[in-house]
Amino acid sequence: MLAVVLVEPETPGNIGSVARVMKNFGVKRLLLVNPKCNHLDGEAYGRAMHARDILKAAVVVKNFGCLEKFDYIIGTTASLGSDYNVLRSPITPGQLAQQLSQRFGGDKSRTGIALVFGREGNGLTNGEVSGCDMVVTIPSAMEYPALNLSHAVAILLYELFKGSASIRSHIGLASRTDKEVALSMAGEILSKLEFPVKGKRKTHSVVLSRMVNKSFLTKREIFALIGFLRKVLRMIGK
Amino acid sequence: MLAVVLVEPETPGNIGSVARVMKNFGVKRLLLVNPKCNHLDGEAYGRAMHARDILKAAVVVKNFGCLEKFDYIIGTTASLGSDYNVLRSPITPGQLAQQLSQRFGGDKSRTGIALVFGREGNGLTNGEVSGCDMVVTIPSAMEYPALNLSHAVAILLYELFKGSASIRSHIGLASRTDKEVALSMAGEILSKLEFPVKGKRKTHSVVLSRMVNKSFLTKREIFALIGFLRKVLRMIGK
Repeated sequence: MLAVVLVEPETPGNIGSVARVMKNFGVKRLLLVNPKCNHLDGEAYGRAMHARDILKAAVVVKNFGCLEKFDYIIGTTASLGSDYNVLRSPITPGQLAQQLSQRFGGDKSRTGIALVFGREGNGLTNGEVSGCDMVVTIPSAMEYPALNLSHAVAILLYELFKGSASIRSHIGLASRTDKEVALSMAGEILSKLEFPVKGKRKTHSVVLSRMVNKSFLTKREIFALIGFLRKVLRMIGK
Repeated sequence: MLAVVLVEPETPGNIGSVARVMKNFGVKRLLLVNPKCNHLDGEAYGRAMHARDILKAAVVVKNFGCLEKFDYIIGTTASLGSDYNVLRSPITPGQLAQQLSQRFGGDKSRTGIALVFGREGNGLTNGEVSGCDMVVTIPSAMEYPALNLSHAVAILLYELFKGSASIRSHIGLASRTDKEVALSMAGEILSKLEFPVKGKRKTHSVVLSRMVNKSFLTKREIFALIGFLRKVLRMIGK
């Protein structure tokens, strides 16, 4: 089970925003470590929008030590340029997502994973970081690396979510067979055209294949393309 | 050059948050299409933190049509269940990042790319979506798919940022004019084909446009495509 943990959050609006994005990515469990504001005030509810249930169910704990019941405590830190502090030598959100999906697969329910975010101003202390099993950093611009708290949560949860349920699951992409049907029709059309320069027909065939592949067409789109090519072929065949 | 475009944004706080995360990921250009609030008020500045320069330099334009100067207009929509709306057949942020880093490499400066985000409440209209060259959707939970505006911007820019360092390329991309030449030829071909079902010609036209745009063809590739279409047109015209 994945939980988002905010350590001493300072502004209710940020907590509300975090709750919203948690629901956007299907994460329900919110833990607040010694919060410095009221997470049930109007500002928090306003920003949570349709995720008020997550705010209401949030659990408040006294200190960082309370996280020990989790199997994995994953801390987050701001991007650091050249940091020789081993404690903070971090992995990327993408690496974390890959690890979690490889280790836990579809069943994250039996393992407790805490994703821990520090204070808006100062992040996690060195002591807290050393209490984490690993540290994740979101790569960002050197000029202004400090992300807003809820933006950091949004990006981390997005990475974890996209690994588990991709957009392909509900939008069908063209299969290899679909693409082959379209490209063999394109090939037939090419065979009927005149090419004075040798090798040109092959070039065209390669370009059409690249275009079909690079565009990640949906099933609906490739069927439309096949329909179009069939009509062209009929016209040319006349 | 990458620009973030907000269409009729309603709350100054969101615009400020967007400015902050733009600076976090090194994007400087902010365009506001017919904003419904003042992006220079205290709430916006408060949320922008160290990105006030981006707010101050934001450019306000009257309508969506003003985006035509960009070579690529990339719209964003909320996660949708089925793929039967051709206009909204989306790619993922990861796919977009991969395409852009492969096609543009380190040099995005010569090609104008607009990353367009809709209204907080209603997103982009169908008319606006059809004015985009392609559409990106952030995968999210079916239960509550609607992300906060600045969270959506954060996730998109994070994906583009983390991919930007990876692959470099000096291959020139097709310009808007190149694409228009190819698509107007495709249109001519379509006009010569018979379509017993009303509206089918339009669907084909949309799909072909999507394919040309989503595949980020190079100049060489689009010239090959134009050559192919010209030959088909000649054959059909006979």
